[in-house]
Amino acid sequence: MQHDAYLVQMTLITPTASMKGATHGGRAKCLQRLVRLGMPVPRTVALPFPTVRAIALGQMPDLTALLAEFDEDALLSVRPSSQDPDWGGPGAILNIGMNDTRHAALSKTLGQTAATALYVRFLQAYAVHVAHLDPEEFETDQTDSATLDRLLTAYKDEADEPFPQDPSRQLAGVLSSMARAWEGTSARILREARGAPADAGLGLVVQEMALGVGAAESGSGVIQFVSSDTGQPIVTGRYLSQSQGRDAIAGTEGAIYLTRDDRGPSLEELCPDVFAELIRIGGIGRIRLREEMQVEFTVSAGALHVLDAVRIARTSRAAVHIAVALAEDGVIPKSEALLRIEPRTLNELLHRQVDPTGARDVVARGIAASPGAATGVLVFTAEAAQANAARGEPSILVRHETTPEDIRGMHAAVAVLTERGGMTSHAAMIARGLGLPCVVGASRIAIDSADQTLTTQDGRVLGAGDVVTLDGSAGEALAGAAPLLEPALGDSFRTLMDWASDHQDIGVRANADTAAEAQVAATFGASGIGLCRTEHMFYEADRLTVMHEMIFADGPEDRQGALDRLLPMQRADFAQLFRIMEGRPVCIRLLDPPLHEFLPNSRSGLRELADALGMPLKDVTRRVASLSEFNPMLGMRGVRLGVAMPEIYEMQARAIFEATVEAAQSGNVVVPEVMIPLVSAVREVELVKARIDAVAASVGAESGTEFSFRLGVMVETPRAALRADEIARYTDFLSFGTNDLTQMTYGLSRDDAGRFMSEYVTQGVFPEDPFHRLDEDGVGELLRIGAQRGRSACPDVTLSICGEHGGDPESIEFCRRAGYDYVSASPFRVPLARLAAAQLAIRAGAQTAQP
Amino acid sequence: MQHDAYLVQMTLITPTASMKGATHGGRAKCLQRLVRLGMPVPRTVALPFPTVRAIALGQMPDLTALLAEFDEDALLSVRPSSQDPDWGGPGAILNIGMNDTRHAALSKTLGQTAATALYVRFLQAYAVHVAHLDPEEFETDQTDSATLDRLLTAYKDEADEPFPQDPSRQLAGVLSSMARAWEGTSARILREARGAPADAGLGLVVQEMALGVGAAESGSGVIQFVSSDTGQPIVTGRYLSQSQGRDAIAGTEGAIYLTRDDRGPSLEELCPDVFAELIRIGGIGRIRLREEMQVEFTVSAGALHVLDAVRIARTSRAAVHIAVALAEDGVIPKSEALLRIEPRTLNELLHRQVDPTGARDVVARGIAASPGAATGVLVFTAEAAQANAARGEPSILVRHETTPEDIRGMHAAVAVLTERGGMTSHAAMIARGLGLPCVVGASRIAIDSADQTLTTQDGRVLGAGDVVTLDGSAGEALAGAAPLLEPALGDSFRTLMDWASDHQDIGVRANADTAAEAQVAATFGASGIGLCRTEHMFYEADRLTVMHEMIFADGPEDRQGALDRLLPMQRADFAQLFRIMEGRPVCIRLLDPPLHEFLPNSRSGLRELADALGMPLKDVTRRVASLSEFNPMLGMRGVRLGVAMPEIYEMQARAIFEATVEAAQSGNVVVPEVMIPLVSAVREVELVKARIDAVAASVGAESGTEFSFRLGVMVETPRAALRADEIARYTDFLSFGTNDLTQMTYGLSRDDAGRFMSEYVTQGVFPEDPFHRLDEDGVGELLRIGAQRGRSACPDVTLSICGEHGGDPESIEFCRRAGYDYVSASPFRVPLARLAAAQLAIRAGAQTAQP
Repeated sequence: MQHDAYLVQMTLITPTASMKGATHGGRAKCLQRLVRLGMPVPRTVALPFPTVRAIALGQMPDLTALLAEFDEDALLSVRPSSQDPDWGGPGAILNIGMNDTRHAALSKTLGQTAATALYVRFLQAYAVHVAHLDPEEFETDQTDSATLDRLLTAYKDEADEPFPQDPSRQLAGVLSSMARAWEGTSARILREARGAPADAGLGLVVQEMALGVGAAESGSGVIQFVSSDTGQPIVTGRYLSQSQGRDAIAGTEGAIYLTRDDRGPSLEELCPDVFAELIRIGGIGRIRLREEMQVEFTVSAGALHVLDAVRIARTSRAAVHIAVALAEDGVIPKSEALLRIEPRTLNELLHRQVDPTGARDVVARGIAASPGAATGVLVFTAEAAQANAARGEPSILVRHETTPEDIRGMHAAVAVLTERGGMTSHAAMIARGLGLPCVVGASRIAIDSADQTLTTQDGRVLGAGDVVTLDGSAGEALAGAAPLLEPALGDSFRTLMDWASDHQDIGVRANADTAAEAQVAATFGASGIGLCRTEHMFYEADRLTVMHEMIFADGPEDRQGALDRLLPMQRADFAQLFRIMEGRPVCIRLLDPPLHEFLPNSRSGLRELADALGMPLKDVTRRVASLSEFNPMLGMRGVRLGVAMPEIYEMQARAIFEATVEAAQSGNVVVPEVMIPLVSAVREVELVKARIDAVAASVGAESGTEFSFRLGVMVETPRAALRADEIARYTDFLSFGTNDLTQMTYGLSRDDAGRFMSEYVTQGVFPEDPFHRLDEDGVGELLRIGAQRGRSACPDVTLSICGEHGGDPESIEFCRRAGYDYVSASPFRVPLARLAAAQLAIRAGAQTAQP
Repeated sequence: MQHDAYLVQMTLITPTASMKGATHGGRAKCLQRLVRLGMPVPRTVALPFPTVRAIALGQMPDLTALLAEFDEDALLSVRPSSQDPDWGGPGAILNIGMNDTRHAALSKTLGQTAATALYVRFLQAYAVHVAHLDPEEFETDQTDSATLDRLLTAYKDEADEPFPQDPSRQLAGVLSSMARAWEGTSARILREARGAPADAGLGLVVQEMALGVGAAESGSGVIQFVSSDTGQPIVTGRYLSQSQGRDAIAGTEGAIYLTRDDRGPSLEELCPDVFAELIRIGGIGRIRLREEMQVEFTVSAGALHVLDAVRIARTSRAAVHIAVALAEDGVIPKSEALLRIEPRTLNELLHRQVDPTGARDVVARGIAASPGAATGVLVFTAEAAQANAARGEPSILVRHETTPEDIRGMHAAVAVLTERGGMTSHAAMIARGLGLPCVVGASRIAIDSADQTLTTQDGRVLGAGDVVTLDGSAGEALAGAAPLLEPALGDSFRTLMDWASDHQDIGVRANADTAAEAQVAATFGASGIGLCRTEHMFYEADRLTVMHEMIFADGPEDRQGALDRLLPMQRADFAQLFRIMEGRPVCIRLLDPPLHEFLPNSRSGLRELADALGMPLKDVTRRVASLSEFNPMLGMRGVRLGVAMPEIYEMQARAIFEATVEAAQSGNVVVPEVMIPLVSAVREVELVKARIDAVAASVGAESGTEFSFRLGVMVETPRAALRADEIARYTDFLSFGTNDLTQMTYGLSRDDAGRFMSEYVTQGVFPEDPFHRLDEDGVGELLRIGAQRGRSACPDVTLSICGEHGGDPESIEFCRRAGYDYVSASPFRVPLARLAAAQLAIRAGAQTAQP
């Protein structure tokens, strides 16, 4: 085949063993494949990384030999070929070799207009990018002869020499400028920011021009065979007669569609043979390159030339569809389809998104704390959000920061915006659990709660009722109702998730406190609930009242009265969770927060509470104050409550076991998991375990129904990790609460860290926010110690992590290596976690298979 | 010698290898020694522990054989002989063998009155302690014949049998009742509370009675040869004619002094030979028993009998003097003198104490947070304490709890009482540092700050100006001015401390923030200052104002202005410390607390602050609120401040180095130690170290004086301990702050733990308050890991602990084992720590010497 000759893979510097294919870069590699597939690629020479690096240092290869690879009269293009197209690189330069002589010759064969256009184009590029002359002098879209003359004169004036006529010198200039641009500081910073290694190299591809201008039908275009938005098969692209490069998609007038339809002229009508050949090439490319490609082509006097092919750009949704379709068609194995999806991109699929093509009138910018987008009216209180929800009106809840008192309002709102807080603030955590879009730490806005106004970062004042769109994925609030794209949980997504299940070898559960969250968890294929925080069940209005009575009880008897009324409510909560999870394990954490979190701290809240309890305001205020703590995170909470007021945990255990009996009686066999929070000493576990065992025995005897349950400890204090061996002897499982463990290991409150965390990360004091990315060196050391000691004492103990890190691919990898059984993540992060887990297993299997 | 025959050491149960001397108990052992020294001890048989245990189970030894050891007509006594006299035991029973026949016989030899008294005495003891009859029936101080008859009748009525006449049966009853009493529940609980092992045994000493009644001079008494209060030589005791046992010191009328003086009749006059013999015996006993003993003796018809000898009771002061005197006299080695003093008892020597003989009208009871006692008028504000101090009137400062705002008031007060807080609350820590008596957590009092009243636990209302005595050693406040005993830092104490220095092989430094504390530290022989908390230097009135300006500064320039004014003040502080410590190392911790701790939180304080700064109250209030934190312990403090506002640490470093230069120029070569607090990541150390090195270079260049310094890290977060290897590479020393490390390892705020700690310790959840006693299992594990990793990376790194645990003997032992170089403790705990360290070295040396 004549096409074989088009590509010469040439190595001008003696190749060494380390000079594999990759050292010529991705574009060169792809072109080589296209040539091998018999595609009409113009003659091409690829320069490898070491050669280009040498050029940057002033060592030019033998250009005479290089030019000898091409037709003597050919014009050439040079394109960059780095290892990853995302790492940037210099722009292509076309028509190298153009000079007065060739201009005259080409004027005869192509016509003067076309020949002059080629010359002007090259001259412009050379002047600006090679000779580094003032770009303004060479900026024009005229390509007539007068312009050419003016530009030649300008070149001579600016450069103090005439425009170089020697093709060899031209090529040397182009290669040298592109090689040096790659080594420049700004290019280096850009690509390192995108993840390139410090020594990333550049290859250059020198290609004979297929001109795209001149006699008969000539032009250039790009084509792709599936939609970048959806991944569904559809031919799209543009073609522009008498053009070069990517002119057809640069918005130039006269570009036509490719397929015949009602919209206007098309390449299919204009050159049916060329179009058919492109379709044929597309089909071959998809199968042999194992990817959906965008093809850059030129028609030169009616003949098709393929200049380049790149992976099509794609949305996350399209990426999933393309990968699944390729696997279903047998082009790639399913495991490769799984590996092709970056887990974090699944977030975009699971939530509404602001249409990226729309205008953005940003009124607030903060931390993107929970992804998705929603439009609603501004409200400044939880009550207003609830009132709106009752009327069916969506609200965006705006607060300085949220507290547990706002939970009901958050349930009622469609999105949350706070002035303070970080990725693990109360608002962020609750919103992620609820799947609500959330922006926190929008520190440049000013909220006036009394006036119910929000002053934007540019000084506009918005009030209650004003419409805003919150973009939780971008961390921005936009004025008005921005156009939204719906989530895209199509068949391909479900198929991909099914395939993930076939591979993943570490479990993924969900943190779910409510029926709604459990439903999401079940939908997303969580293998169970890894953390059900019972405290959230007490914030509903009717329960909060009883909770207050319990807190204000005078002694154990009074307290028991309130608890007796909470019991049926709790039982109903658990019964509902068990129904939804259909026998999958549900791990229930006993009450954790300090009791004062259930109490109001505003003047009006205290007054309401006093009225409800029939107590003097003064007494209520004093009692609330007496419960306040200097450091609530390190105070009277978790198992300390359970030891001090055992009736609370007994009530909760009874509710769990009675719901278990209820489920068993309707044929749903549940083995509930009861988890003790904030343990720091084994004796705490002994004490609580004895009481819970007694409650279980009692419920078993009363109901005449046998059931079993598992008891475990939430390892949140460094001490619990260090003493995991003795603790494991009393437990069936240890679940590491990485949020609190991080707080205590660093001595750093997540609620207070926001004030300096970004500066700390910027200065590199912490490589990442440890509440966001698991700190493997410190917190991870405790996870390893805890796992080793727990397993050494009790080889069957189930190990897991719950907390924000559970949905993070790096954390999942860490846990898998450390021998954990499962991770537990926010329901909306379950798909991401499952995909990440599957990828880890596939990669580990591949490594095992290749010893 | 005839006396040799007095003691028969008899083992009625076949002895086994494990039955060493100790199994007969301390009293038996001592009596055996007295016999061997040729003292006139009546014939004695000692029953070992296994025999007594068998008796309790009903297996009586061969009493005929036992009785055959004594004169046929002898009366006997039985006394308990446990391993440690502090562990309690049944009371002695005298005159066993008394019955109608002997009564008749003795009536002839001793006279009827004396004989009847012996019978009544035995009958009473037997009825109550052996036959367990109603004590009221036998309670009388009459010993005439009619009484004897009445009691014999009462015995027969109550016991349904006549009083047993068989000496063998009587002895069996006595032995059996005493053996069983030892195994009883209440005796067991009592002795276990005093530290006895669960299987502690009892021996019984059966001794022939030297009667002390009858013809010629007969009687009994006790004598000791040094003062129990001071340890100084002085003969004290009492003698009572016609008495038995310890009657002479039971307050019975007719008891006389021993030595001839103006007070009345004396044994020295009555029986000069007996007195001379007692003095001779005392001299021999001191040297051969190597201890100051109290001797119990009987004079029987003019002849001296020594019945028993026990270590004299003694105050801490006397204990020190006795031990030192014995060592100086060559009776015991110096090392043994050191071992004989319980380190914790030194506390009593260093502070005033409430005279234990006075009446106590307790108005408040709490935690004994800082030892010593003081009398003063109640004040409810720091300002009032200062005002009183200015007038020279001592005040007791009463607060709900203290905050850094109260520091000046605490300096001005003579004692502090708080309603809240625990052993490591702010009040407790500061008070211990200042050596002020302090009681915290007096939760049953009610303080009304507005009315300036304190309602006592029994409902009395005290107001400002009322006189109270605070007993920080007992944890009580007493109404009025209770009589006080002055501290007793005599020559013996100083001698003992000098000997301690000769032995101790782990250093003891002091935590000292002020010149006064440093002076105490130097006086008590601290080898340096292990922790100087610089924040306390900023609470003085003039400095606090500048500190406020710094906190409210708009940006680094403004802040620098305030810091420039703080610099000379800080420099003067350090210069003074360097002068006092005379070249001993001073370890200075850079600013640690969150800035909001320097700001007022009361309405009036905010108003004052606004006035001082010339800012609107609203702005000040907002700014203060914006600095507040959810969990200040885990917030923006320590090195996080140093990274965010490097000017602060730079100012402090400059002050340290300029003071160093100043000292050098006056001939005092100081190598200051600069310590970075709250490190959790090595990069924090790198950043701060670079700036401090630069300041040092700059001060060196400006002054033309060469000096060196050491840089270190305070290891307070679990992460710093886990990463000690990488941190050690940047540091000369690692000082483990066990207070904060305990908080973070447990996830437990010391300020909030008070609410449940006592219940936790009572329930055995924590074996001890971990803020009081180092938790070796958890926190200690981090100390071991930190030490190992730090040393592995940097074998020369100096390791130490500072914080409350530094003065605790168990913690010192732990640190010594783990290879730490020194501990640092409150100044007033330095002697205790030095003595404990010396004891550890001596005991370790003894172990090494005895392989």
